Amino acid sequence: MTRSVGIALVGAGAMGKAHSLAFRTVGGVFDLPIAPRLEVIADVNEQLAATAAGHWGYKRHTKDWRSVIADPCVDIVDITAPNRFHREIALAAIGAGKHVYCEKPLAATLKEAEEMFRAAEKAAVTTQLGFNFLKNPMIDLAKNIIQSGEIGEIRSFRGIHAEDYMADPTTPWSWRLDSQGGGVVEDLGSHIVCMARHLLGPISRVCGSLSTVIPSRPTARGSTESRDVQVDDVAHALVQFDRGCHGTLEASWVATGRKMQLEFEVVGSHGSIAFTQERFSELQLFKLEGSQSRNGFRTIVAGPLHPPYGNFCVATGHQLGFNDMKTIEARDLLLSVAGIEHRGPDFREGYEVQKVIAAIISSSHDKKWVEIGQMGDSAAR
Amino acid sequence: MTRSVGIALVGAGAMGKAHSLAFRTVGGVFDLPIAPRLEVIADVNEQLAATAAGHWGYKRHTKDWRSVIADPCVDIVDITAPNRFHREIALAAIGAGKHVYCEKPLAATLKEAEEMFRAAEKAAVTTQLGFNFLKNPMIDLAKNIIQSGEIGEIRSFRGIHAEDYMADPTTPWSWRLDSQGGGVVEDLGSHIVCMARHLLGPISRVCGSLSTVIPSRPTARGSTESRDVQVDDVAHALVQFDRGCHGTLEASWVATGRKMQLEFEVVGSHGSIAFTQERFSELQLFKLEGSQSRNGFRTIVAGPLHPPYGNFCVATGHQLGFNDMKTIEARDLLLSVAGIEHRGPDFREGYEVQKVIAAIISSSHDKKWVEIGQMGDSAAR
Amino acid sequence: MTRSVGIALVGAGAMGKAHSLAFRTVGGVFDLPIAPRLEVIADVNEQLAATAAGHWGYKRHTKDWRSVIADPCVDIVDITAPNRFHREIALAAIGAGKHVYCEKPLAATLKEAEEMFRAAEKAAVTTQLGFNFLKNPMIDLAKNIIQSGEIGEIRSFRGIHAEDYMADPTTPWSWRLDSQGGGVVEDLGSHIVCMARHLLGPISRVCGSLSTVIPSRPTARGSTESRDVQVDDVAHALVQFDRGCHGTLEASWVATGRKMQLEFEVVGSHGSIAFTQERFSELQLFKLEGSQSRNGFRTIVAGPLHPPYGNFCVATGHQLGFNDMKTIEARDLLLSVAGIEHRGPDFREGYEVQKVIAAIISSSHDKKWVEIGQMGDSAAR
Amino acid sequence: MTRSVGIALVGAGAMGKAHSLAFRTVGGVFDLPIAPRLEVIADVNEQLAATAAGHWGYKRHTKDWRSVIADPCVDIVDITAPNRFHREIALAAIGAGKHVYCEKPLAATLKEAEEMFRAAEKAAVTTQLGFNFLKNPMIDLAKNIIQSGEIGEIRSFRGIHAEDYMADPTTPWSWRLDSQGGGVVEDLGSHIVCMARHLLGPISRVCGSLSTVIPSRPTARGSTESRDVQVDDVAHALVQFDRGCHGTLEASWVATGRKMQLEFEVVGSHGSIAFTQERFSELQLFKLEGSQSRNGFRTIVAGPLHPPYGNFCVATGHQLGFNDMKTIEARDLLLSVAGIEHRGPDFREGYEVQKVIAAIISSSHDKKWVEIGQMGDSAAR
Repeated sequence: MTRSVGIALVGAGAMGKAHSLAFRTVGGVFDLPIAPRLEVIADVNEQLAATAAGHWGYKRHTKDWRSVIADPCVDIVDITAPNRFHREIALAAIGAGKHVYCEKPLAATLKEAEEMFRAAEKAAVTTQLGFNFLKNPMIDLAKNIIQSGEIGEIRSFRGIHAEDYMADPTTPWSWRLDSQGGGVVEDLGSHIVCMARHLLGPISRVCGSLSTVIPSRPTARGSTESRDVQVDDVAHALVQFDRGCHGTLEASWVATGRKMQLEFEVVGSHGSIAFTQERFSELQLFKLEGSQSRNGFRTIVAGPLHPPYGNFCVATGHQLGFNDMKTIEARDLLLSVAGIEHRGPDFREGYEVQKVIAAIISSSHDKKWVEIGQMGDSAAR
Repeated sequence: MTRSVGIALVGAGAMGKAHSLAFRTVGGVFDLPIAPRLEVIADVNEQLAATAAGHWGYKRHTKDWRSVIADPCVDIVDITAPNRFHREIALAAIGAGKHVYCEKPLAATLKEAEEMFRAAEKAAVTTQLGFNFLKNPMIDLAKNIIQSGEIGEIRSFRGIHAEDYMADPTTPWSWRLDSQGGGVVEDLGSHIVCMARHLLGPISRVCGSLSTVIPSRPTARGSTESRDVQVDDVAHALVQFDRGCHGTLEASWVATGRKMQLEFEVVGSHGSIAFTQERFSELQLFKLEGSQSRNGFRTIVAGPLHPPYGNFCVATGHQLGFNDMKTIEARDLLLSVAGIEHRGPDFREGYEVQKVIAAIISSSHDKKWVEIGQMGDSAAR
Repeated sequence: MTRSVGIALVGAGAMGKAHSLAFRTVGGVFDLPIAPRLEVIADVNEQLAATAAGHWGYKRHTKDWRSVIADPCVDIVDITAPNRFHREIALAAIGAGKHVYCEKPLAATLKEAEEMFRAAEKAAVTTQLGFNFLKNPMIDLAKNIIQSGEIGEIRSFRGIHAEDYMADPTTPWSWRLDSQGGGVVEDLGSHIVCMARHLLGPISRVCGSLSTVIPSRPTARGSTESRDVQVDDVAHALVQFDRGCHGTLEASWVATGRKMQLEFEVVGSHGSIAFTQERFSELQLFKLEGSQSRNGFRTIVAGPLHPPYGNFCVATGHQLGFNDMKTIEARDLLLSVAGIEHRGPDFREGYEVQKVIAAIISSSHDKKWVEIGQMGDSAAR
Repeated sequence: MTRSVGIALVGAGAMGKAHSLAFRTVGGVFDLPIAPRLEVIADVNEQLAATAAGHWGYKRHTKDWRSVIADPCVDIVDITAPNRFHREIALAAIGAGKHVYCEKPLAATLKEAEEMFRAAEKAAVTTQLGFNFLKNPMIDLAKNIIQSGEIGEIRSFRGIHAEDYMADPTTPWSWRLDSQGGGVVEDLGSHIVCMARHLLGPISRVCGSLSTVIPSRPTARGSTESRDVQVDDVAHALVQFDRGCHGTLEASWVATGRKMQLEFEVVGSHGSIAFTQERFSELQLFKLEGSQSRNGFRTIVAGPLHPPYGNFCVATGHQLGFNDMKTIEARDLLLSVAGIEHRGPDFREGYEVQKVIAAIISSSHDKKWVEIGQMGDSAAR
């Protein structure tokens, strides 16, 4: 008999929906030893909480997130509330011995991130961060190709995450643009930093360059009042990895026309890999083999040979979607809670990513290279 | 309060899983007046039925599909059993006044298809066929662009559905290769015929050319015994639509290297559209507008501006997957059962598709053009 | 010492320029035993002839093409005059024992084409037709891959040549639209028919479907008078090759937005090839080899491993252009004149292409399949 | 009557061939007031010089480059000799009052580059550097789009030039790998620096990171002796432009699988541009206009609307090749010599590019940002 675990969702917005869909689906897609049980939704907007609970299949709702943490029916606290509340909610949940599933980024500052991962490790609870792009079977394929040595020694890396959702200067000011918000380097940069670490391991040093291209924005849509933007819109960085190779990272939320340009290129001595999230069911692979006159980058199409694709669909080329990656993330959370396998990324990884982000910000401010090893522990952001 | 309708799934294979995932998800994605209630799975393989019922969340299972049709808790009979059983199960369900959701193709012969759609119309039950590729928001966009006249008068059409799942000559003989199986023209050809009709309306005449490139196959994997293939592996056809324009259709299941080459191109007097299922979150559009020196085919990326994408995901470029199209299909079924909107494709459409398929087969056999209007009613396939 | 051969160009239009550039360049690109000597340009527009001669480097000009044929300094008559003059000029040149280089299509009718190729064979002069797309090194690569058996038995073919240069209904009537003009099936269809034959050998039977989507056009730009179009704008055909495999051909000059969609796909039992002239320095190749989980269509980029690319450029990826293909064509002409190698396509090939075109037209008219073997010799178009 | 100018080519290698083909062709493609007259080839390898002169159409040859500079028949000295000889030959030619056409990069050091451009300016001779990629009509289009403000304020830039011609560690040591060679940052980096300046104007500051991934190479093919590589294989840099926007530059000659990845992306407030030299007859353009639900990056295909494409070819999509860009370069040289128009890039631009390269090298060495304004004049490399 499958054991069930109670889920409390804190935050009834769009990401809350994505998490809820994943929990509804995960048991049908995968054969798991534990099943999610949708207990309660907490949101300060009680009406929203009520509607969401009914719609997504939760038993009840509340406007008080603290009550769900105390609730003995709840095993996992799932945080999709705004970033600035991550710390308080997560620490409370950890303090109550709950497992925590939290959207990225982990925290607003490196200090908070450290506090959070240390608390989780001390309490020995499972933590899972929503860096969903890692969950794509083609990313597993890329990682396997790199780690197995199929493309030899890694020579360089280029990583980009560019979108245009803040590209319009008339898009109003919001909490993202406050000095606490972190800017694009934190919002999208964290995705590409996490991806870079996932594929190539730790980053040792960075030299960042942040710029703000829209210096002020209206206080509300259509307003003539404006408010200063205190964070970066575009981020570029030189990086070096512990393994030695060099590369660049780039993040932008003002990249006019780009919707999901999460791209990377890994160059190795025996081959190369190129990927873009805009076509995330494909991986471009070049391998030094066979006749040179017939060689070139090949387009690998995702299929059952790339687990866990086959759990969703039996035929190659049918494609997974964004919500399927969330379902894989939910599976990984449940496997970790069940003590079977811990795939992450967890709060410690969130802290490591935050260290790189903090180093890029610090580096850009001081116009010099920064060693990642010098960040963290005692360092404020 | 949301009313619920009981679902009986007949067939616990891969498509049964896809349908079940759709039913689990649909109520969380869409705000619907009726909710699916997973009642029972029927499969001749009782162990499979039992496992599937537990795994996918059905209340019970049976090896006798007839029992579920008699079951008063069942409102919708969902048929994912092999094609040759579609007729018998569907007619029984219709006879019992149940709504029927059935995988494509509708039936093995045109005569059966006619019998089925007439029974359904007489009984006034909802029917829904699993031509899931129509459910893609980008196909809605393409259809809107065509119907609104944005690209002017339609001048020509090219439709392809090519895969390689039967490309290997050592893949054993199976029921698909029997004369009852219908060949690729029925298996994949039905998808592209349905797509062509969806976009451009009825087809008036065809001239087909079917070929069998692997004339016999082993009776089982590794066997030295072989059995003759009685159906086509590759199908080509000239077509003319009622609206006047001409084009070609093509289907292949031996297209080495192709995984999901469901492609079409629609040329109009003021623009053109190109689409491939391999990148189904994109639509290529050319429009005669603006400066010629800056014009070209543009790549539209699916997003919330293309309903119902936004029900799944709030940001452009995150992408839907195959199972999401099944979820939209399930929504359409439920809206029809609720009497709110009938989007199809239903059994009548399945019959119309079958007429075109039958005409292509007949045309290829007789090496001449065949009028679609002369097919059907009294015509045997 | 390199021998030189005198060139007379008949027709000082755009294709005349392309041929002249090729003759200026060919001796620097290739190491040839004979060199072209630009003797004379003939054009009924004497001023145009004079300007062109000065500009392109010919010694003299004339308005009388007959005079150049009689000229003992002339060894090769190069015909870039309008199609309807090909026959008369070519026969006169052949009659005078000159070699003939002629733009495609060979002639306006099959009967004329037959007359021309028979005259050339009888006179034992070299003939070369301007099907320049065959001269691309990537087409040689494709042909080698097919002929060597690398992709196994050929299973199907799809060939397209679509452009939009007649897409605008206000583009005035011209000689191309007269019943002598041949329509798109002759203008662009001949390119894809020649390509199909080049890659897969003779075509045995066809079933064509021609349509005219713009039935009349203004007599001149901006005129309110209009004139009926007597030829096809769009052509589709089913084909079967002598080697057995089936396929489709398509030509359109009203394909809004398409500039150079000369595409083909060849499916074999061990691999497949896809090509588009829009990216003619690339060839898409799939081969059944290596790990399936890492396989896919690869993009081969043209380089020195694909002769004669290296004669133009020493590094891969630098790319050849349209005029370079004309230079290769000129090389092939000169090698044939020198008696070293005869690569064609020659007038006989032009006649064979014309037979297929004539069969498609006849088939479309009679709405039935036509055997190519029944065309030609005594058959009128 | 067209005036002619005498050309002396110094260096009979592959680039010498490309220049010679351009001179043979340019007068036929363009209507120019002066015509090139191929006088003499100089190469230390006299046999090579003799063969090349015969093959490419020069009147005579010599092994002594100094003699051609003194030759009164010579108006333009065209230098395609190895980089380390550029300075000496160019200064001698300038001293003799000749115009100079020189392959890139201008010189081995910034000091030499300065000496060369100052000598040329003082002598008031025309100089032209072989940054041929700028000559592409699609680059003119990109520049026009940027300069006209069509895509608004520029927000960021990414430029890459990656190839794999040094990717194989068994490729032997050569002069390029000497400390005088300059490494990839000079060899390929100069192309992308020049492109960046061409599109967006001067660069104000850089922070570079150079790495050597193949530390030693065999002294000769197959040799067991090896020699240390003293230059960079991979170069990354952060840049800021005088206009304010930030970006990255990247160069690699060890990018396994990449043949001509000269790519850039320019993000503006009203649109964006993306380009890759691998498909250099296309430009990707996004513009904020029209319906968002139908918008996306469009692929513009080069044609006569993009001058001077129409001089080569009358129809869109036929494509130019690498040698055609050299022909445009030769035109620009001749127009400058004729005093009609000076398009460059000239020696001064070569010097400006060299300053950026030198700053990247210096920055990488000192691990800090470097202002371009502090380079040059008195600065050694």
